[in-house]
Amino acid sequence: MDNFLKKAAASARELNELSAKVKNAVLLEMAQALRDNTAKILQANSIDMKNADENNLTSALKDRLFLDESRVDGMAVAIEEISALKEPVGRVLDGWMTDDGLKIEKVSVPIGVIGIIYESRPNVTSDTAALCFKSANVCVLKGGKEAEASNVAIAEVLKEVLIKNSLSHEMISLLPDSSREGVAKLIKMDKYVDLIVPRGGEGLIRYVSENASVPVVKHDKGQCHTYIDKDANIDNAIRIAINAKCQRSGVCNAMETLLVDSAIAESLLPKIKSAFDAEGTELKGCDTTRKILNGLAHAGDTEFHTEYLANILNIRVVDGVSGAIDHIIEYGSGHSEAIISENITTAEKFLNAIDAAAVYVNASTRFTDGGAFGFGAEVGISTNKLHARGPMGIEGLTTYKFKIYGSGQSR
Amino acid sequence: MDNFLKKAAASARELNELSAKVKNAVLLEMAQALRDNTAKILQANSIDMKNADENNLTSALKDRLFLDESRVDGMAVAIEEISALKEPVGRVLDGWMTDDGLKIEKVSVPIGVIGIIYESRPNVTSDTAALCFKSANVCVLKGGKEAEASNVAIAEVLKEVLIKNSLSHEMISLLPDSSREGVAKLIKMDKYVDLIVPRGGEGLIRYVSENASVPVVKHDKGQCHTYIDKDANIDNAIRIAINAKCQRSGVCNAMETLLVDSAIAESLLPKIKSAFDAEGTELKGCDTTRKILNGLAHAGDTEFHTEYLANILNIRVVDGVSGAIDHIIEYGSGHSEAIISENITTAEKFLNAIDAAAVYVNASTRFTDGGAFGFGAEVGISTNKLHARGPMGIEGLTTYKFKIYGSGQSR
Repeated sequence: MDNFLKKAAASARELNELSAKVKNAVLLEMAQALRDNTAKILQANSIDMKNADENNLTSALKDRLFLDESRVDGMAVAIEEISALKEPVGRVLDGWMTDDGLKIEKVSVPIGVIGIIYESRPNVTSDTAALCFKSANVCVLKGGKEAEASNVAIAEVLKEVLIKNSLSHEMISLLPDSSREGVAKLIKMDKYVDLIVPRGGEGLIRYVSENASVPVVKHDKGQCHTYIDKDANIDNAIRIAINAKCQRSGVCNAMETLLVDSAIAESLLPKIKSAFDAEGTELKGCDTTRKILNGLAHAGDTEFHTEYLANILNIRVVDGVSGAIDHIIEYGSGHSEAIISENITTAEKFLNAIDAAAVYVNASTRFTDGGAFGFGAEVGISTNKLHARGPMGIEGLTTYKFKIYGSGQSR
Repeated sequence: MDNFLKKAAASARELNELSAKVKNAVLLEMAQALRDNTAKILQANSIDMKNADENNLTSALKDRLFLDESRVDGMAVAIEEISALKEPVGRVLDGWMTDDGLKIEKVSVPIGVIGIIYESRPNVTSDTAALCFKSANVCVLKGGKEAEASNVAIAEVLKEVLIKNSLSHEMISLLPDSSREGVAKLIKMDKYVDLIVPRGGEGLIRYVSENASVPVVKHDKGQCHTYIDKDANIDNAIRIAINAKCQRSGVCNAMETLLVDSAIAESLLPKIKSAFDAEGTELKGCDTTRKILNGLAHAGDTEFHTEYLANILNIRVVDGVSGAIDHIIEYGSGHSEAIISENITTAEKFLNAIDAAAVYVNASTRFTDGGAFGFGAEVGISTNKLHARGPMGIEGLTTYKFKIYGSGQSR
């Protein structure tokens, strides 16, 4: 592992010397190589699918794992889009002259070697490799065991393009030891690895955060809320609430708990219920909610902490915006939080008090994503507070250094 | 500890609601309170100084620890300067309209609760407390045992000002359990603590990095180099080298190893030697250097890895800029690196290839500091690659969130 990572770190310097033109041409070749090797990739994928059957994976997991010609083409298209992105490194982010006459430029640079730990979807392998290559970072990829054959095939295709271009194949690597022990080693290798991005279950992310000496950008839990204020436009409120829960309930920016202002609970809750009933949503309620709406299961501390990732919703009646803020401080995960209100003072109070990556007024939390934000390709949605917060575009794969131009200055 | 940090986190929300006007007025009161309580602070400091004598601390350490009237006044002045800084939170860093008609504002916000671990100098207590308060962060301070009485006295004075203004005294706190176990607990408390800033010896920083689950911004080793290229202006080169080593040798941005282009080694090294001899610098050399200059001790792998923090310098002859880059990649700590050359192509090659917080052409590495960069107050010099890199001004104590203004949008 030590030797492998040492080589990876060395190839980072080689990668950093490539011009944008060269990098973009290599990326286009990679896209074409994926298309040319579709048969090979699909054959590897069929091994994973067979194992998935034998291991009784859920149909949702199998769907994430499955590749066909059009999905491989989609991977190629994604790489072409990444190739077309603006060059992310070498941008002058700031610049000034100091009192001593030094010219300082703050310039974007690659992070170096990035370890990425993920699950299921084989397209993450090619997407991530391309995003890292474009931003001149070496990636060390650790995909899920269930997608191993597919990931190996995809990585081989990309590596062949590197070799054909006389570049070190270590620029894009799968972690050689993909066991739990391999991961344990990787996250301690701060001598060679500059960043770990874990994407996956809570357990994995907790493990990585607690044990890594390498810095970590997490992509974890979204315990998102929508608060409907007494001054809300009710049509907007219901439509946004339905969208936040039901448009796609299995994702991190979907709503888990709806907070309703006590001042309008009596009149609003029946409308809310019939709207969600039409979507087949399973509703749970706090005591006040259950007095107004009959037959709901109880929602308490445990439910308010649960990220359902399913068509299930908690409803809680709170005392105005302060009650909503208190609830979110207690139960929110700092991902995405929304208030529905026409009152600007109430809205700003909420936006300022809530400490989350994305805070919304009069819009659905489902907009927290790189595409909707206009970032183009997305590395993920960071739940870190530092480095990258919220939707993370390719800039999230860069850091900066100061270039200082003197003419003989000493102190 | 749990309960203490929970209260600290709660006071972060209270602090975040204060206007800049209120914060600045409180800071000015703190400055005055330090002046008014000079006798009390000096009395506490005399206890620390007595213990320092009994424990045979070095005179350098004792000088760092020592306070007198003028040093207390200096602490007050520092707080007044921090009060006068531009408001760091609530700045709109970026903003745009999305395709869906959402207005997105990227706004600077406090980080939350920051744990700061430091040594010796009692003025760090008041400086850090003021920087955190100005940026609406709660600080949990863990100073060195040797400065305990002084730190307690200073913190009490600041806390009294908070209480007088009806603010929670938890906004500025000393870690209640200042033992090793207390620190071990603090760095795992990611539920309440958002950032740890360790400032001190390598051992401490290593321990914190390896064991923290809270994100860490390190301020550690500066293994800095100056490379004199064959195309250097020799007068500049010698002056800058002397400055980088001798102006203040005990600091992280001082040079530890001088690299000399083999093409000019024969003619340059004797001049270098006589310049450093005049400064009383102890020189060590690689084999080539020792052939040209007689009587130097040997510098090899161990010396190249050593941060002397003293008037001792390694000299190594390298093959041009590529040799210098190779040496720095092997031995540099990513802090500050300089090339002395009039050749723009050589200089840019060096600036681009070296992965350090600050890379210089024709200037001394001693400029890597917040004051010289024009940042005003300095939190420290980060050797992190992420979040804050290099000199860290008060902006380094902020992060951002996205405020999103909709008019009923759903997806």
